Amino acid sequence: MRARDLLSAFPTLSLDTPVIEAARLLAEQDLPGLIVVDDRGLPFSILPGTQVLRLAVPGYCQDDPALARVIDEQHADRFLDALAGRTVREALPPEPRELPVADPGATVLELAAMMARTHSPLVAIVDEDRLLGAVTLQALLDRVTGL
Amino acid sequence: MRARDLLSAFPTLSLDTPVIEAARLLAEQDLPGLIVVDDRGLPFSILPGTQVLRLAVPGYCQDDPALARVIDEQHADRFLDALAGRTVREALPPEPRELPVADPGATVLELAAMMARTHSPLVAIVDEDRLLGAVTLQALLDRVTGL
Repeated sequence: MRARDLLSAFPTLSLDTPVIEAARLLAEQDLPGLIVVDDRGLPFSILPGTQVLRLAVPGYCQDDPALARVIDEQHADRFLDALAGRTVREALPPEPRELPVADPGATVLELAAMMARTHSPLVAIVDEDRLLGAVTLQALLDRVTGL
Repeated sequence: MRARDLLSAFPTLSLDTPVIEAARLLAEQDLPGLIVVDDRGLPFSILPGTQVLRLAVPGYCQDDPALARVIDEQHADRFLDALAGRTVREALPPEPRELPVADPGATVLELAAMMARTHSPLVAIVDEDRLLGAVTLQALLDRVTGL
């Protein structure tokens, strides 16, 4: 069993996509994360769902979630408003992360090792210069547990 | 909006659950992670899905996923066999991780900050000495994006 047997189409975002649309896509399609592609359509960043939140949550709250308690409920409910007008390009962290990307010949063990190492529930599958889709943690587990 | 408005029941595992059952539960119920409880029924460990893989993937493959390529496809397909007979207690990493746990009064911003910080797509909700359930990233995103 190889990546090519497990992959499926996966929606992508460009660097110019508004972050709020990225959050909506994640919610609406129940995705485990997002793939941001560059001008050539190749993965530029792969964001696990929890890291999409990182784009919206103020840094001081991430350092100490208890500090988030000083924000009242009404404002807390609307924390995504902070993203208004910002693009994915503006919101991505400056330091590049290790990209969970594999070729179609990767085995399930390679894919699992990459997910474990990068904390990413999806791996983008790239063949030469083309994004073929992604293998999700669920697809991988379904197959290796024999579902 | 508070954690109590967003939480739902969530299956739990004990420390004596075989790891392979944990992997199956994750796959079968499409869960974003697992809650391991202690003898009192309180969260002992909360494992994002990708960290359940960590229990099964050999350390040298996690350090360098390319090394996984030396394992042939047939053996790679069966990498979960390494878990046979092991319990969750035996498989958990020795160093304790920061637990994504909040009380029912936590705001969505507190929950989001905790998910971002701990890379966990679920937060266990505990009231005094009782586990009430969990808030998932999907449930949180659905509400804050107005779905």
